[in-house]
Amino acid sequence: MRITALAGGVGGARFLRGLLRHLEARTDGPHSLTVIGNTGDDITLFGLRVCPDLDTLVYTLGGGVHEAQGWGRADETHTVQGELKAYGASPQWFGLGDRDFGTHIVRSQWLAQGQTLSQVTARLAQRWGLPEQGVTVLPMTDTPVETHVVLEEDGEQRAVHFQEWWVRLQAAVPAQRFVVAGLDQASAAPGVLDALRTADVILLPPSNPVVSIGIILGVPGVRDALRGTAAPVVGVSPLVGGAPVRGHADACLSAIGVESSASGVAGLYADFLDGWLVDDADAESMRAAAASKSPTVRSMPLLMRDIDHAARIAGGALDLALDLRDA
Amino acid sequence: MRITALAGGVGGARFLRGLLRHLEARTDGPHSLTVIGNTGDDITLFGLRVCPDLDTLVYTLGGGVHEAQGWGRADETHTVQGELKAYGASPQWFGLGDRDFGTHIVRSQWLAQGQTLSQVTARLAQRWGLPEQGVTVLPMTDTPVETHVVLEEDGEQRAVHFQEWWVRLQAAVPAQRFVVAGLDQASAAPGVLDALRTADVILLPPSNPVVSIGIILGVPGVRDALRGTAAPVVGVSPLVGGAPVRGHADACLSAIGVESSASGVAGLYADFLDGWLVDDADAESMRAAAASKSPTVRSMPLLMRDIDHAARIAGGALDLALDLRDA
Repeated sequence: MRITALAGGVGGARFLRGLLRHLEARTDGPHSLTVIGNTGDDITLFGLRVCPDLDTLVYTLGGGVHEAQGWGRADETHTVQGELKAYGASPQWFGLGDRDFGTHIVRSQWLAQGQTLSQVTARLAQRWGLPEQGVTVLPMTDTPVETHVVLEEDGEQRAVHFQEWWVRLQAAVPAQRFVVAGLDQASAAPGVLDALRTADVILLPPSNPVVSIGIILGVPGVRDALRGTAAPVVGVSPLVGGAPVRGHADACLSAIGVESSASGVAGLYADFLDGWLVDDADAESMRAAAASKSPTVRSMPLLMRDIDHAARIAGGALDLALDLRDA
Repeated sequence: MRITALAGGVGGARFLRGLLRHLEARTDGPHSLTVIGNTGDDITLFGLRVCPDLDTLVYTLGGGVHEAQGWGRADETHTVQGELKAYGASPQWFGLGDRDFGTHIVRSQWLAQGQTLSQVTARLAQRWGLPEQGVTVLPMTDTPVETHVVLEEDGEQRAVHFQEWWVRLQAAVPAQRFVVAGLDQASAAPGVLDALRTADVILLPPSNPVVSIGIILGVPGVRDALRGTAAPVVGVSPLVGGAPVRGHADACLSAIGVESSASGVAGLYADFLDGWLVDDADAESMRAAAASKSPTVRSMPLLMRDIDHAARIAGGALDLALDLRDA
């Protein structure tokens, strides 16, 4: 079974790690997983190219992630950052550990040698044993793109890099809108559109619908591929009781004028979504909002407390997809 | 008193740290020290610009050097390099610690922003408190240059970067000659020629006469400035009993066809050297080789066992220079 997923960072990575756990227990293998990762978060820091979502995916699926934090590396130290601070280098609001620096240094070196982000990501994933697990992580595009957030202060609008809004400002300053610099000129990375067209199942993990999955959907060709694919497309709501489990999805939804609810998020995917897995707490409101064009809705507890919970949720999403395919 | 010195890495840095210690004890201050550092050793590793000699100078004079090793940082860890190895990045023969990586990252970032190596070096030195000590470290040139070593293997000649010969091959493969790529087109960094022309005293520490001081002497204008300056130029022999105390000066001298002796090295500086401080063990051979154009020679024990020894040697060199100036 060929599964393709679109994913952002922590939530998507944890869901997909659960999916791999679930697939191990299934007897209808072999399975392969292609993950199309958001690169709108990417940022150049200290002259090094940092890809937060791709790294979170690779670290999490490869067993190297800092478990409690959800991103970055386990057993991390921060010697290099301390040196940069001592030299007065900026910015200091983005925490980078020494192990993580290794990734950014080697990625920057390979990119500077002319390799594409796809090629670099594949080499990084190799070290983490993803090919052996049947997992391919693709950046949504090899073109450098950057999500900028337009803020309004004292009547003046200014744009900051997504990471500055998310990390430094903790999304506490209301976003007016999101602008993805370079996205309209970008093309999907090799394999991305094919992975959507030829998949048996397509899953949308509970990633941020605006600044993670929403950005991937903006890559030219991706939305059309989702609309046209024969595979069932099943999404997992990122909300529990209308609120995000982590991150600032509500602030992002608010910026684009969408209600922070399971039906609000489903509406963003309305043109291609076949199945929609929501938390039990959101089942009733989802039913109330149901329209004729609505996806098939199922509910279960969506809080990913650990890998086993994530595996159950991923199994629920996959079962929904297979039921829709066989229907 | 304005003192200007030409210097390579470990030996030069330790001598100059001794000079600062000696100057503290003198009552004829204030003194300032301008160090013109060799950049022929510079190398780009993992996409980062590494300046071994400048860093050794700044770390040593700033109190951050790894004392036993003579280069690199004290209290060093090697997490980043372990990661680069895990990713299969090369080369692995050049050891870079985490603290050291901080320097290379910030330097590369600033260089990429368009700052010159002089400007970057001044910013790095600031963190180490060199201006407060009256010390300025100047790269010999802001133009990237690289010393290459021509080797002969099986009748075929090939050139490797100096660091590959020095570090990886431990200078065990005989060098045919040294080629400094870019040096003939380079110009002295701002302040370099003035520091030679306007100095009260010029010192040549016991740095490698071929691949450290010899490279600096190849920067257009430097040799002429030394010939033309009114300041006494005093050198300290890098040899004790005809052999280098550390490093591979003998292999370098052999490559350019010069005898590994105090008089052989002095011959390399013959056109501008006024005073020459040699080890007691080399005093007799130096006297035997004396010619009419020879510099004034003094001898003392030149082994720099610790900072106090280095201070005594530096004091000896400075006294010789002042005696020559007042003669």
